[in-house]
Amino acid sequence: MNVLKQAIREKGTVLSSGVLKVDQFLNHQVDTTLMSQIGEEFARLFQDQQVTKVITIESSGIAPSFMCAHVLEVPLIFARKKKSVTMNQDNVYSSKVYSFTKKEYSEVTVSKDLIQQGDRVLLVDDFLANGEAASGLAKIVEQAGATVVGIGIVIEKSFQDGRAKLEQAGIRVESLARIASLENETVEFLDEVVTNNK
Amino acid sequence: MNVLKQAIREKGTVLSSGVLKVDQFLNHQVDTTLMSQIGEEFARLFQDQQVTKVITIESSGIAPSFMCAHVLEVPLIFARKKKSVTMNQDNVYSSKVYSFTKKEYSEVTVSKDLIQQGDRVLLVDDFLANGEAASGLAKIVEQAGATVVGIGIVIEKSFQDGRAKLEQAGIRVESLARIASLENETVEFLDEVVTNNK
Repeated sequence: MNVLKQAIREKGTVLSSGVLKVDQFLNHQVDTTLMSQIGEEFARLFQDQQVTKVITIESSGIAPSFMCAHVLEVPLIFARKKKSVTMNQDNVYSSKVYSFTKKEYSEVTVSKDLIQQGDRVLLVDDFLANGEAASGLAKIVEQAGATVVGIGIVIEKSFQDGRAKLEQAGIRVESLARIASLENETVEFLDEVVTNNK
Repeated sequence: MNVLKQAIREKGTVLSSGVLKVDQFLNHQVDTTLMSQIGEEFARLFQDQQVTKVITIESSGIAPSFMCAHVLEVPLIFARKKKSVTMNQDNVYSSKVYSFTKKEYSEVTVSKDLIQQGDRVLLVDDFLANGEAASGLAKIVEQAGATVVGIGIVIEKSFQDGRAKLEQAGIRVESLARIASLENETVEFLDEVVTNNK
C-alpha cells in the first residue's frame, strides 16, 4: 500500500534494528485519513469471507480496524490487555501474550458474551513481529468455537517469524507494508530499499 | 442524542449506583455506526472553534473520537496511560490521573512533538464522572501552551462533580448523554427516567 509506505518513509523513525517508531500517524498521533484507507483496504481484501466480527487489541489496533468494521457493517471488538473491574472474570476468554517491545506478559481477554460459535472473525493489528499478539487473539477465537478468516496487519516486520507461525497455523495473513530490514537506521521494504533520513 | 440513549437503555447494564457497563457498544465491543454518529456530532458542536487537534485517552476514547477528527480533518492524538518503551520520557507532557473505577493512579502522557503552542485542542472522552481524566488532559494541553476549546463526552455521570470542575476551569462541556442517577439498577437521564430491564 503505497500511501502507507510513504507515511513510514516520511514520518517513521528507526529506533533500532528491531523497533520502528510510528507515533506520528499510527500509535500515538493518528492520521485518520490514512487509517480510514487502511481499514477500507482490509475490508476489500476480506470482503468475500462473510466476516461477522472484527477483533483487534487495545490500543493501537483500534484506529486501523475502525473503518474496516464500519465498511463490513460488523461489530468491532477490542481485546483488553489488562483485566478491568467492570469485566466479569469468570466470563472471559483469555490468552497470555508476551510483548518483546514492552518486555512483559499481558493477559489478553475478550468477554464470552461477544464471540459466538459460528462467528467468522477477521483479526486486525498494527504490527506483526513474532506473532505473539496475533496468535493470542486466534486462540481466543478458537476457545469460542469460532473461525479466524484471516488477519489484516498494518506493518509486518518480515525479518521476524510471525507470518510463518500464523501461516503454519493455517491463517491467511494480509500485511499492507512488509519490512525486510531495519538495519543501519534504514527501512527496507520487501520490494525496495529506502534510506531513513531521520 | 437519542440514538445513544437508546443504546444505553437497550445494551447498557447498571452494575452499581456508580457503574454503568457499556461494553456491548462502546468500550469493549464497538458499534462503529453509533461511534461515527457520535464523532460527527462532536465535530458539528465544535465546528466553529478552529480546532487543530483532537486529543483523547486510550483505549475507550479512540473509537468515539476517530470520526470527529476525521470530519474536522485534524490529527487525533490518544494520550498514553502507561509509559511506553518507544516514547522518550524526557520529551513528554504528563499528568497523574486517578481512576475510581480501576482504583489506581496512572500517568497520562503525550509526546511534546505532538502539541504546539497555538494549537486549539478539542478533548474527547467516553465517560465524565469526577473529571480526573479530563482535567489531566487539559493540564497537558496547558503545559504545551495550547488552548482547550472544549470537551466532548459520550456519557456524563451528572451525579458526580466532573462537569462542575471543568466549567469552573472555564472549559466548555458537551455531553451526548447525561445520567442523573444509576440508583436502584435504573438509568435515569437528566430529562427522563427509564427502568433498566437487565
